[in-house]
Amino acid sequence: MMDIEVEHQLPVEKISATLAQNDRGEFRRVFLELHFYDQARLLIQLDEQQRGKVYRYLSAKELGDMFDELEVNEGNAIAYLKEMNPHQGAMVLSEMYTDNTVDMLSDATSSDLATYLNLLPSGEKNEVRKLLNYEDKTAGALMTTEYVAVSIDDSVGTAMQVIRRLARDAEIIYYVYVQDDAENLIGVVTLRELLSNDKRAMVREIMNPNVYSVFVDDDQADVAQTVREYNFLAMPVVNRAGHLLGIITVDDIIDVIDEESTEDYSGLAGVNVDDLEESPIMAAVHRLPWLITLLILGMSTATLINHFEGLVSEASILAVFISLITGTAGNAGTQSLAVAVRKISVENDRKMIQLIRNEVITGLLIGVVTAIVITVIVGIWKNNFVLGAVIGISMVAAIIVANLAGSLIPILMDKIGVDPAVASGPFISTLSDLTSVMIYFSIARIFLNYLI
Amino acid sequence: MMDIEVEHQLPVEKISATLAQNDRGEFRRVFLELHFYDQARLLIQLDEQQRGKVYRYLSAKELGDMFDELEVNEGNAIAYLKEMNPHQGAMVLSEMYTDNTVDMLSDATSSDLATYLNLLPSGEKNEVRKLLNYEDKTAGALMTTEYVAVSIDDSVGTAMQVIRRLARDAEIIYYVYVQDDAENLIGVVTLRELLSNDKRAMVREIMNPNVYSVFVDDDQADVAQTVREYNFLAMPVVNRAGHLLGIITVDDIIDVIDEESTEDYSGLAGVNVDDLEESPIMAAVHRLPWLITLLILGMSTATLINHFEGLVSEASILAVFISLITGTAGNAGTQSLAVAVRKISVENDRKMIQLIRNEVITGLLIGVVTAIVITVIVGIWKNNFVLGAVIGISMVAAIIVANLAGSLIPILMDKIGVDPAVASGPFISTLSDLTSVMIYFSIARIFLNYLI
Repeated sequence: MMDIEVEHQLPVEKISATLAQNDRGEFRRVFLELHFYDQARLLIQLDEQQRGKVYRYLSAKELGDMFDELEVNEGNAIAYLKEMNPHQGAMVLSEMYTDNTVDMLSDATSSDLATYLNLLPSGEKNEVRKLLNYEDKTAGALMTTEYVAVSIDDSVGTAMQVIRRLARDAEIIYYVYVQDDAENLIGVVTLRELLSNDKRAMVREIMNPNVYSVFVDDDQADVAQTVREYNFLAMPVVNRAGHLLGIITVDDIIDVIDEESTEDYSGLAGVNVDDLEESPIMAAVHRLPWLITLLILGMSTATLINHFEGLVSEASILAVFISLITGTAGNAGTQSLAVAVRKISVENDRKMIQLIRNEVITGLLIGVVTAIVITVIVGIWKNNFVLGAVIGISMVAAIIVANLAGSLIPILMDKIGVDPAVASGPFISTLSDLTSVMIYFSIARIFLNYLI
Repeated sequence: MMDIEVEHQLPVEKISATLAQNDRGEFRRVFLELHFYDQARLLIQLDEQQRGKVYRYLSAKELGDMFDELEVNEGNAIAYLKEMNPHQGAMVLSEMYTDNTVDMLSDATSSDLATYLNLLPSGEKNEVRKLLNYEDKTAGALMTTEYVAVSIDDSVGTAMQVIRRLARDAEIIYYVYVQDDAENLIGVVTLRELLSNDKRAMVREIMNPNVYSVFVDDDQADVAQTVREYNFLAMPVVNRAGHLLGIITVDDIIDVIDEESTEDYSGLAGVNVDDLEESPIMAAVHRLPWLITLLILGMSTATLINHFEGLVSEASILAVFISLITGTAGNAGTQSLAVAVRKISVENDRKMIQLIRNEVITGLLIGVVTAIVITVIVGIWKNNFVLGAVIGISMVAAIIVANLAGSLIPILMDKIGVDPAVASGPFISTLSDLTSVMIYFSIARIFLNYLI
């Protein structure tokens, strides 16, 4: 039985020992038993000199398998590739799955990119060049070209032969795509179905002609949604003419889902939670621009209160409730924002208007209940129900406006093409501070005589 | 070529027509061509009378395939099952994958549960009973028992026969688990590897003995993390003795990842974004409890400002900057919270202390820069650099405290066993309102003479 804790421990010391003793055989014996992902994790714990030996002790294919995992899981895999001479580096790149090769090269400087491309075998070079041209976060940028395809005229037996031949190199062999003579994607058959049928049966009889596919320029979030709904292990990618160009496997979809949810989450908080290893200095540098921007927006609220300073000096009791109103409205607005951003990613236009309408109505209901509660509390506490009513009315109005902002702003941003996740929680709550104060003091001024 | 837009359109009218004409043959012809997920989507668009015909026109196995998708994608699948008589319902349940059967029955009332369990074949009944007992959100609650296993003494040829036999019923046939006589999980071999080897080779020669597994009581988030890192299509689940109990497939892992990220996101905003169809009234009902709680917490801030009311009436300029300080500190605290919640899910204890320390240092750096900016702005605006310094110093202190709260509180909650995602953004910012005000007025009081 394998304890999951034990399995995750890497034999770092043992490997270091084999490297120190220049024992190529023993190193290979221990290292190649590890899962590729663990090989990658171990590599980054070695120093540069040790890694140099690792590059010499492993074949290009073995390094390629490891670098596949390095690229997917580490941000800066190309730095490790550059520790080898360019010829070896290019060989390793050609042994990797093409989607990972492309990801690694898209992080390279233009001169490094040119160097490696020139050293790749020409077939690979063209494939990589094509994939590099796809826009980030589209199906084309995610796909790989190592898939299994058969002709519609093939038999099950022929298909099985193709699979056996490609078993080591294809990224996935469990879905077999069916093409006609013009290389159009016209069907799919699973390995499961092939195994359930006699060798002499024809692919065209057992294939599923209603094959789901995505266009090469489809947004990655839409691709992820389809995989999620239909539980596919891979999606074929076609161009507008229907030619099969590549496939996206479910593990890459999981990475997309993680990326999209991290973006939503980051947007709500106004901070990028992706880089978990950054130092406090880098964290401060990253967060400051947005915070200073919000500070300046907050200054307009200060300017507004300043405009009403006379009012406050006459009825200083008003200062007591500033943060209560701004805070409650801010909380409500953040809730509306969170719901709106989540809905935008899955719904269409007509529903957006309904969303705004619903959020405003929700704000009204919440506001009325909150207003009644606060009117009673303040009225009893300060023995002044006019004051209570002022706070209560301000509360209702502030909450409705905050909910409106929280739902409308991300929708508008989505319309003009900006990622709605950028309309962060802090922005909405700082904006609602401004509107809440404006409402509060305007109402208070009307009833000033009852508040002094 | 299939346009993804076209593929997602359901032949609702055509199906409705076949049902209206009681044309069983034509209905089956059109309906059974659809992907199971599309069948489920179509079913819920029919009315009860139409669905009654659907249940009569399809076999238990066909209904089972559709209900598998219904359960995964719709919240209330059991309501549809109850439209059939219990005997048919139980037959459909037994044709579903066991993990989905268990999910559906865990939504049932106890009397419905008892009814269906009694009608299940006894083998299935025991399996379902066992799985129902696993705690929600653990590996045991996610797993299914339809996997492929072979003995360590089997040959590749024997393994392929087992696969062919189970090809229709196993949830996944691409990973084959290897057991010894005592049913311990001792290895795994992929279908890819089986196809790459001669029929006479032995499973024990080609299998991977370092098989990754999870314990039946492991947390679902940990299971998802392992699948994510190693790109598995399925994870075997074992008990503490090492016996293979079931498997979790990657599509269920995707659902777990979605669930966990929705929880984090909801927690940050203080609102449950899961139910996207709720009416404004229900939305208000769900959000009010938390908002009222925060309102009462906000009252303590009001009480605090009230304590300082004399100070404000003497230097009403102070009221101008209340929301600026509380707002900026609140924004910073929310950022710390977001980072902390995200890190807690992937890191260990020692790193938690480092996290808090880093957030406080980040707060100090942010605070100092913000303080300098605001001191200059206020000093010039109000021609009073003491006032500026008071605002600046308050700002620094308020931000540091907010960052401390934003990172410490979720960690403490995680320690006492509460989901840190509950420590929502609104809670941290409302709390930081309190601390910010306390700091602000305490400092202001010291320098009161320079502010009048």
